[in-house]
Order: sequence, then structure tokens, then C-alpha cells
Amino acid sequence: MISRHVFGQPIETGAVIMTIPESTQAIAVMNTALGEDGITLSCQMADTDVVYGLGEQVRGMNKRGFSYISYATDDPIHTENKHSLYAGHNFLILSRTNEPSFGIFVDDPGRVVFDVGETKLDQLCITAGSDCTIYIIKGSSLKDIARQFRELIGQSYIAPKWAFGYQQSRWGYSCEADIRKVVDEYHTRGIPLDAVYLDIDYMKDFKDFTVDEEKFPDFSGLVSDMKEKGVHLVPIIDAGVKIEKGYPVYEEGVQNGYFCKDEDGQDFVGAVWPGKSHFPDFLNSRAGEWFGNKYQWLMDQGIDGFWNDMNEPALFYSEKRLKSVMDEILSMKDENLGLHSFYHMKGRIDSLSGNPEDYESFCHNIDGVKVRHDKVHNLYGFYMTKAAADAFERIAPDQRTLMFSRSSYIGMHRYGGIWTGDNASWWSHLLLSIQQMPSLNLCGILYTGSDIGGFGSNATQDLLMRWLEFGIFTPLMRNHAAAGTREQEVYQFDNIEDFRNIIRIRYGLLPYIYSEYMKAVFNNDMYFRPLSFDFPDDAHAASVEDQLMVGESIMIAPVYTQNATGRYVYLPQDMLMVRMKSMENKSCQIMSKGHHYIDIALNELVFFVKKNHMLPLAAIDDSVRSTTDCHFHRPDSDYEWIGFADESAEYMLYDDDGSTKSYTPKDQWIKIVRSAKELSL
Amino acid sequence: MISRHVFGQPIETGAVIMTIPESTQAIAVMNTALGEDGITLSCQMADTDVVYGLGEQVRGMNKRGFSYISYATDDPIHTENKHSLYAGHNFLILSRTNEPSFGIFVDDPGRVVFDVGETKLDQLCITAGSDCTIYIIKGSSLKDIARQFRELIGQSYIAPKWAFGYQQSRWGYSCEADIRKVVDEYHTRGIPLDAVYLDIDYMKDFKDFTVDEEKFPDFSGLVSDMKEKGVHLVPIIDAGVKIEKGYPVYEEGVQNGYFCKDEDGQDFVGAVWPGKSHFPDFLNSRAGEWFGNKYQWLMDQGIDGFWNDMNEPALFYSEKRLKSVMDEILSMKDENLGLHSFYHMKGRIDSLSGNPEDYESFCHNIDGVKVRHDKVHNLYGFYMTKAAADAFERIAPDQRTLMFSRSSYIGMHRYGGIWTGDNASWWSHLLLSIQQMPSLNLCGILYTGSDIGGFGSNATQDLLMRWLEFGIFTPLMRNHAAAGTREQEVYQFDNIEDFRNIIRIRYGLLPYIYSEYMKAVFNNDMYFRPLSFDFPDDAHAASVEDQLMVGESIMIAPVYTQNATGRYVYLPQDMLMVRMKSMENKSCQIMSKGHHYIDIALNELVFFVKKNHMLPLAAIDDSVRSTTDCHFHRPDSDYEWIGFADESAEYMLYDDDGSTKSYTPKDQWIKIVRSAKELSL
Repeated sequence: MISRHVFGQPIETGAVIMTIPESTQAIAVMNTALGEDGITLSCQMADTDVVYGLGEQVRGMNKRGFSYISYATDDPIHTENKHSLYAGHNFLILSRTNEPSFGIFVDDPGRVVFDVGETKLDQLCITAGSDCTIYIIKGSSLKDIARQFRELIGQSYIAPKWAFGYQQSRWGYSCEADIRKVVDEYHTRGIPLDAVYLDIDYMKDFKDFTVDEEKFPDFSGLVSDMKEKGVHLVPIIDAGVKIEKGYPVYEEGVQNGYFCKDEDGQDFVGAVWPGKSHFPDFLNSRAGEWFGNKYQWLMDQGIDGFWNDMNEPALFYSEKRLKSVMDEILSMKDENLGLHSFYHMKGRIDSLSGNPEDYESFCHNIDGVKVRHDKVHNLYGFYMTKAAADAFERIAPDQRTLMFSRSSYIGMHRYGGIWTGDNASWWSHLLLSIQQMPSLNLCGILYTGSDIGGFGSNATQDLLMRWLEFGIFTPLMRNHAAAGTREQEVYQFDNIEDFRNIIRIRYGLLPYIYSEYMKAVFNNDMYFRPLSFDFPDDAHAASVEDQLMVGESIMIAPVYTQNATGRYVYLPQDMLMVRMKSMENKSCQIMSKGHHYIDIALNELVFFVKKNHMLPLAAIDDSVRSTTDCHFHRPDSDYEWIGFADESAEYMLYDDDGSTKSYTPKDQWIKIVRSAKELSL
Repeated sequence: MISRHVFGQPIETGAVIMTIPESTQAIAVMNTALGEDGITLSCQMADTDVVYGLGEQVRGMNKRGFSYISYATDDPIHTENKHSLYAGHNFLILSRTNEPSFGIFVDDPGRVVFDVGETKLDQLCITAGSDCTIYIIKGSSLKDIARQFRELIGQSYIAPKWAFGYQQSRWGYSCEADIRKVVDEYHTRGIPLDAVYLDIDYMKDFKDFTVDEEKFPDFSGLVSDMKEKGVHLVPIIDAGVKIEKGYPVYEEGVQNGYFCKDEDGQDFVGAVWPGKSHFPDFLNSRAGEWFGNKYQWLMDQGIDGFWNDMNEPALFYSEKRLKSVMDEILSMKDENLGLHSFYHMKGRIDSLSGNPEDYESFCHNIDGVKVRHDKVHNLYGFYMTKAAADAFERIAPDQRTLMFSRSSYIGMHRYGGIWTGDNASWWSHLLLSIQQMPSLNLCGILYTGSDIGGFGSNATQDLLMRWLEFGIFTPLMRNHAAAGTREQEVYQFDNIEDFRNIIRIRYGLLPYIYSEYMKAVFNNDMYFRPLSFDFPDDAHAASVEDQLMVGESIMIAPVYTQNATGRYVYLPQDMLMVRMKSMENKSCQIMSKGHHYIDIALNELVFFVKKNHMLPLAAIDDSVRSTTDCHFHRPDSDYEWIGFADESAEYMLYDDDGSTKSYTPKDQWIKIVRSAKELSL
């Protein structure tokens, strides 16, 4: 049951698709107070209560013990003291043992603070703006609350099937030869690959909707060559538009008033990759339509996937602030700088980027209504992505176009996925990635994954291998790294056959991953779940922070610490342990409910299958270079079925052509039943 | 067996106290190559080999999988990608299963790189300067190799007994009233306290050996008042000396040529807390003696403990570099700064602090020989601390004076301890602290601990509690936090009785902690050990990264993750589990060898006692306000003995007056024997 509580005069965010009548009653589950800073909602938490949600944030699946601030921020150092990452995902579930659990969605696209027991261990305190809509969701279980929320916010985006293949990226592939080399290196070694990404290097001077013709003399030829090899090229699109006379996107934007305006009504100037830039006013529907249509130029050259970046929006600096900081620093030039003055100077430089005051200094024109940016800050990436998705509907209405974004807000999941931003080659970020997945799913974002191997810092062979062993299960499975870091394509390391074997297992699991993704979409379910969602009566399950349910049959327990040769695993019921070094080298063992220490070699994938469940495994041979070569036939006789059951297990298998929307109806399901003795174990 | 291999003409570092004849043979255990960059030592590692050591560094006890650079650095962000912290601890043990293990100490106080399987998973590669001494240590066991190394480098520093009590610190106690308040708050609540620290706030304009008389009008009165309450005040001493006409330390240093000189023979100018400063040339024995004698001014006012800070030496900037960076920024003032130019500018600002080129730009006068700083960089903190310790010998020869340092090098452990620098209130830093302890012990540093609760960022109640539950076992048990962070004295939180109970357990354990510390000192043993040191034949023990042996009887398994209500523990043998919520609320249970999941409530200390071992527990009542009130009598009848044994257990108990050196002889030992039935369990 969902109740809707309106405070002040909230802006229509587009987060919600259902019409819920406004409640005439007060919020019963939390105390509400209206102060000068806005609305404060608070309640006590019992020791055993768990808080799930908040989407893309730092720390564990249980969010207790810290304060999280929804205010999209471009900060690449995802340490545990950071209050904001790239998104505003204002939904959480308070899972209670003594009282009914409930979900709360704070529909406020400005700054919202969730103090989940940081100030006081036992207090949850949410502070939002005075104009916001609060949805309280009660249900029969955590799964039920999650499903109701998903129904409220609408069906999740469906990516094309090729986007479920393995993908390679690097900021630093700077010319056609670099791209061809990556594909060749993979194919020579028999490692499947479905996409290579074009980071900012492909553009001319970092201008959106341009290609550097010196480095890519025949762009459309390259795109089609690669597609023949089964490899899609996925270019990045940045939010900021370079200020450059004669550059059409700039000229048109200025001419039509499509950019955000500063307090004086001038086009706001902030700097990003190309230097001084303007920022399309995606909240203005005409500006959004205009910008969205620009993607067509790349689609006409064969591009069928994009990633939207820098759309918090990131700001290196605003023109005005840079000037004032520069002046101040220069005035300090001859000072004897000690503790206070030196750190003041450094602080001034650090304050240039993403400064909250800059976000207060420009405005949107929401179809005639002027709104200060900070009030709707978290919508910017959402509406950039919606603008693209709406354009795809016009340009290629039946094509499933890959789209994911860095910044997002609740509701954007209908238009695309996200990646979890600029993480680092840290073991702690592998764990963070594991923990973020169910939180994101809870907020509707199903097409997601982290930069495998880590974006910043230098990856090691073992980190990349362990990360891939988890990444095998994330719908977006992309290896990505920053310029200046160690090269991190799998062929840069030793034991390449281990990498090949693990990546091939991804392709073998695709019938399962694809089916489960579609179930999560159509049933408003979570693809990744904390254990407690499936085992609500198991008190220990609620404390497990490093295992996940993946789809209906699988539980994973990834290794995420360096030099580990195994780990502890908690089985909330008897399960089948599947151990795979390759598609060919596989063994299964029934394990009893309880705590286990499991040896897991570096080149080994281990996962667990729930009792009376099963999963399909497709045969993957040397001919498979991409999802194009995966002939996932029905009838299902080609699949090996893994599982264990008292008598029999059944499975709803999904398939479609993978690329069109018309071929994504609900009747692409087939029910498979296997008797216990027909199952591999 | 120790062999000594000399390359080039090494500088005498003072790390080693034994005379080992130079080996005429090549190093057998590693391949040696002399290149332009210096000496490279390399060898293969088998999958099961473990690398221990390197003292104060990031990452786990097993150092495999990363590169570590010994080059003392003032960097407060201790994330896993940092190659250097504050020290140069060039000793490691390669623990091998198929071949003999060995230890290697690279006696080179310049930059030394340890690539422990980062570049290639299976290769250990050490690169040192071309003038260095290499010691190879072979032995019958890991413990034996560790002991031989400790014999080589000499007996560890012994702190006064009060320094084993609980201590409180904060950058921000800025006046007498602040200090008095801290002590009152603790005493009012019946929480014992042995010391309060004076961070840089106590000085006049951050000048060493001054006290701000406005804020501390009667400093010696305050010191003696506090001492009557059992509380010692411990002031900080910084390496840099403010350039200020008329300030005696500055004037004398200049006059006598005691400061480091730049290339032109001028006193080198770098900035730290007080702004532009000179840096005492501690490697010049006369300068060291002069600076050391300065401590007397504070000792004459009753001070009997110090911490030496900023002695990497930290450099905010050098005068020359600041000018050139400022000029460059000025020249960019009107540029359109984009990706490359903006990050270049930020990079230039970031490069101001601790710039390697600045360390190459000044020199020492090592008793007549001019040596460029970077060649001896890692000795600076060592010799600052030695200068102080040598002075204490002259000023108060029989007094045990507390001394610990931020920067250090092998050998400094003879003169003082260290704290692990500017960590943060991060759960990952609690784990890091656990993992650093045995690595530091291996390098001789016994008096050590981390800033409990974390220095940077905001602590939470649960983090502080869990950190204290580990900190109970570290010889240095100090709660310390940075200015601007949440106040983190235990009385700032709820459930203060839990904090009181846990801190009192520290005092109850003091007979054990003190005895074990002394055993480690006199026997050249490690107080903290990885499990594999005690259980060398247990293959699983070698993989345990989050449990430690503490002294001869105890194994600890601290909780270091948020919201955890327990953890997995591996018992390498049957052990007695001791569960304490307070000195009064205690229970014991015999646990069998193997893997266990153990519930551990937030307010609960759990530790384990080895079979046929025992430990003393002193009674702690409300009268105990500090170690002064702990009457650790012998005969031992006052103690409760905890342990379990087949027939009986014995224990060597140590005690002394805690404050003098003359009363620290080896005959302060008493052997206690208890039959199985006399033991608490």
C-alpha cells in the first residue's frame, strides 16, 4: 500500500508513473517536522533493524551508521567518508523485526540528507526541502515493498542483447588503430567481445557530436567493420557544450536559448573537458528534444549505443569563481603561507570544482517556469538521458539502443542504465560494487555494473580476475580504465587462458542472465538481492554483506580480498555449489545450510544454486566471438541444466531477437521442467 | 644466520648494532643486478609463498600484490593505492613452503622500491640505490628469522608504564580549560585516563619549545595539577623551526649552521605549520645535540613525554617552488582552461607539498660530509627522535620518558615508538591498523598504535567502540582526532558505560600487556604476530589476515566492519574463548580447532586463549583513575588467572616501578604456575 504525502509545492520530477491520491493523513511511521531547512522525518531504529536502499552510495548494503547526501557529485575518490556519489536515489526500506517494515521515497530533486544512525546510532533522520512529495510504502515483505515501489516508478529499461556481452573500454583509445588492435587482441586469443567504448578521445576538441577526423578518418567504415566482427562501438556524450564560434551545437543552443542561464539571464559559463562550456537545459523539453536529435548524426554512422557522462553536471569551475579564486591566490603571492593560509589557498583551488554556490547560480526554464538549478540538481542527468531515449524512440523506434548514464535520479531507470562512475582499482571498490548492485536494483536500475578492474589507479592481474568473477553476473560487464593507469585489457596480463575461460563462462550463463534480467523487468523484481529478501526469517542472512542472490536460482559469494584463496560463505539453506574453471572444467557439490569456509582459487568461479531451482548453461566453443555467435535456441535441448531438486525443478526461460522492441513481448517465455535426475550436479 | 652484502659505498645509517663481516659471496636467494638505477634484487615466488614485513605500509599482512616505496611521505589519505606512508621499513620475510624462508633488510635510507608481485604476480623485485648494504637472514622458522633481525638492530625502546594506560588527544585542545575539561569529563564518569596530548595548539605561533602564555598562563602548574590526577601531558614537537627574528631556536640554529642547507649553501627554506621554516640537520651530531637539549625546557616544567611530528620531513612547499608555481598560475590567469590545462594547474598546486625535487635540493652535513637529503631522506625522523632520546639520557638519565615519532627508519625503535600517522575514521583503517601491528613489530617497533577512532573524518559511536576493542591490546592506546572533525572523546557519545567498561578492561589486562611487552623487548620477540608465526604448519593460518597473536597467550579477532554483530574466526587449535562486557561481566568457553562464526555484540570484547596458556587479570574498581592507582602486586595472588590447560599452565609475570630505568632489570620476573582447576574458564 502506497500513501502519498505532499509538502509545499513540489516540482514534478517525472520519477513516478502511477497516480496516487494525496493522503489526507499524517505520515504515521515517521515523525514529521517542518523547520527552516525543510522537512525532517525521523524515527527510532531497533538494534536489529536494517536499512536498505539509497542506490549509488558508499558503504554496505545495510546503510546504517553513516549520513548520505543525495546531491549528484563528480568525485572520483569513493572512500567511505564521501556523502555523495553521482546520483540522487532517495528510496530506502527500513526493515524491522518488531514492527512492520516500510519503504520511503523522498521525491525531491534537490539536496536530501539521510542520517542513518550516524549522529545517533538508533535514529533515522531524513531532511528534505520544504517542497517535496513523500511516498510511504507498506507491504507483506521486503520483496513486496520493493515491487510496489517499482510499480510506482515504472518498468526498467531493456538493453539490447549484445550489451549483455563482455565489453572493453579505456580512456586513451585515441585513434582507429587503437580500436582495431583491441578487437584483434581479443579475437586472436579466442576471447569473446561485444563492444569497445569510445571515451572522450574520439571527439574533436571534446565537442559533442563531432569525431576527430584525423584520428578516425573513416568513422562509419570503422563502425561497420567492427560490427561485422560482432563488436559495437559505444561513444561517450558529455553534458557540457564547448563555447566555440561556428560549432553548430553551440550556435544553435545560444540562438534558441537552450542553455542554462545565470542570474543575469546570460548563458551560464562553466568549464569541463573542452574548457568553457554551456550546459543544455535538459529540463526544458524543447532543449531536450533538440539535444536528443543530435545523437542521430552518430546513429546514422551505425552507432547503436551511448554513454552519457559528466551530467551531474560536473563543473571544473565556473568562469566567475575561477576569476575570484585566481585573484585571491595572486593577492597571497608574497605572503608567508603557514598552516591556515596555505590550506586556505589549497581549499580555494579545491572548491573550484562542483561548488554548491555555482549550482545555485544558474537556472532552468522548465517549460516556462524559471527554477534555480540546485532545487532540481539531481534531475540533470536523468533528463539528459531521457532526452536521448526520447530521441531514440523517434529516430529508431523499434531498435533497442544501449544507453547508460553517470548521473541519475529515481525514474531514469525507464530510459537507460548507469555505471557506477569513476571507481578505482582497489579491492575495497570490488566489494563496494558488490554492495551497490542490490541498492541500485531497489531503485529500478537493472542495467548496471562497475568499471571492472577499476577506473583509476593501477589494476593487478589478481584484482582484475576476481573482479571479472563477480562481473560475470552484472548485466553491464565492462572493463574500463583511466588514461595514465596500467593497461588493463585482459591480454595485458599473464595466464590469459584463465581470463578467456572466465569470460566464456559469462557467455555460457547468458541464457540465465538474460532471462533473469527480463524477469526483473517484467515482474518489477530485483535481479540482485540481499540474502534477507529471499530468506526473511533467517536472522543471520540479514547481516550478510558480501553475498548476493542473482536471479531466481543463484547465490554468489565473490572473493574480494587480495591473496585470498577462499572465503567464508553462509548458506541460508542447502545449496548446490558449482565450481568452474572453464565451461569444460566444472564440478558440483551439495552443501548443507550453515557456515562454510570455501577454497576458491584465483582462476575459479564458484557460485551456489538454490534448492529445487536450476539454471541453463549454453555450450560455448571457439566459434563464439560475441553474442552474435550465441545461438540460444529454443527448444531448450541445447542447454545443460544445473541444479538440484527433491523431485524436479522448473525454470521460465526467455529469449528474443535481442535487438528490436517489437520482439520483446511477454510471450517469449518457455517453461522448462527437469526431473531431479536430469539435472547436472 | 645473517650475511652482509655491501654494494658501493653505503652511508652508515645506524640501523644495525651488530658487527657482521662482509660476505665474500653473492646473495644466493635472490638474483642481483646492478643497473643505472641502482641494485635490483629479484626472485620468483610460489603461489603459497607469503611476504611479511615492510612495517608501516598500506594493505594486508601478506604484502603480495602491490608495490611499496620506502620514501617517508606526509600523506593523510591512506588508501590502498598509496605506495608510501611515513616511514622506511626495508625489512621483509619471504615465507616459503617449498624452499627455505629468508629475511632481507635493505639498509638504504634513500628511495627503495619493493614490487611484491604487482607487476608480475609471481615475482618479488626490490630496487635500491647503488650504495647500500643488504642483510640476508636465514633461520629455522619465521620467529627465528624475526628474532635474528631484532638482534641485529638492537633492543626496542621501553616506554614508562603510564604510557600503557588509556590516552586522549585532539588537535584542537587550545587552552588550559580544554585540558582540564577533558580530564574532568573522564574522571566524573569513572573512566581511567593516563595522558592528554598537546597538539600544535599549545605553542606560540607553532614555534617549537614555546608555550602560548595567553592560553596556558601557568603551564608548569597545569602539568603538575594534572600529574596529581594521574594524567601526563604530552606535547608535540615539530621538525620545522619557524623563521622569526629573535626566536632563540631560529637564531641559534642559523648562527651555528645547524640547519639543512640548499644548493647555494643558504639555510633551506620550506614551509610547515608556522609558515617559512628551517630544518634542523639532525644527521649532524652537533645539531642533534643542540636540538635535543631544547626538550629540557619542557621537561623542567614537568613534561615527561613527547611526540615528534612532521619529521619525514613534511613540506607544505619550498620557497622556490611556491614562487615558480605562483608565477605559472598567474600566466594561466586568462586562459580558457580545459581538461589538460585545468588539471595541470591543479597538479602544480598539489605538487607543492612533499615534492621529490625539493628533497633533492637541500643537504646535510653528516659530521663534515655533505650529503644530499634525498639519499638519506628516511633517516630524518629517526635522527630527530634519536636526538631527543640522547638528550633524555643526559637530562634525566634514569627516567623512562615517553617518546614516539611519526617518521621512522629501521633502528629508530631503540629510541622510541611510532604512531601510525594521520589515519581516518574509516572502518577500513581499523583493519589497516590491525594489519600494520605485526609488520611494525617485525621491524622492532613495539611501542605503537593507531589513532583510535581515526584522525581525519567523523567517527561514529560504533566505530570508536570497535576500535577501542582492538586498541585495548596496542601498547599505545590513544584516541586522537583532527580539528574540524566530530568530537571523539568517548563521553561525546551515548552508552558511555560501555566505553567505561571496555577501557577498564585495558587496565585489567595491564599485567599481561606489560609483561608481554617486556618479553618482546628482552627476548627480541614480536608482541603482535600473524597466526603463521605460531602455527607454521597450518596452511590455513597463513591466509588469515584479520586475526593476531598478542603476546604468548592471546589470539584476537577484532570486529572491523560496520553493523556486524559477529564475525568468522579461525582457531588453529582448541582455544578458550573469553567474552567480556566489563571486568565483572565475563564468561569463558572452550572452542574447538577450526572455523567458527562468533556473535560479538557492539559492547563486547571477545578474545581467545591458547591451550595450556594463561593470563593474569587484575581487579579494577572505581578507585582506578590511572595506572598510578593500579597496584600490581606480587606475589600474584591478587590476579585472576584465565586459561585452560590439560594439567597446568605457567606464566612469566613482569613488573617494575614503571618509571625508572634502573628498576628495569631482567630479574623483575616471577614464574607463576597454575593447575588446570585453578584457572578461570
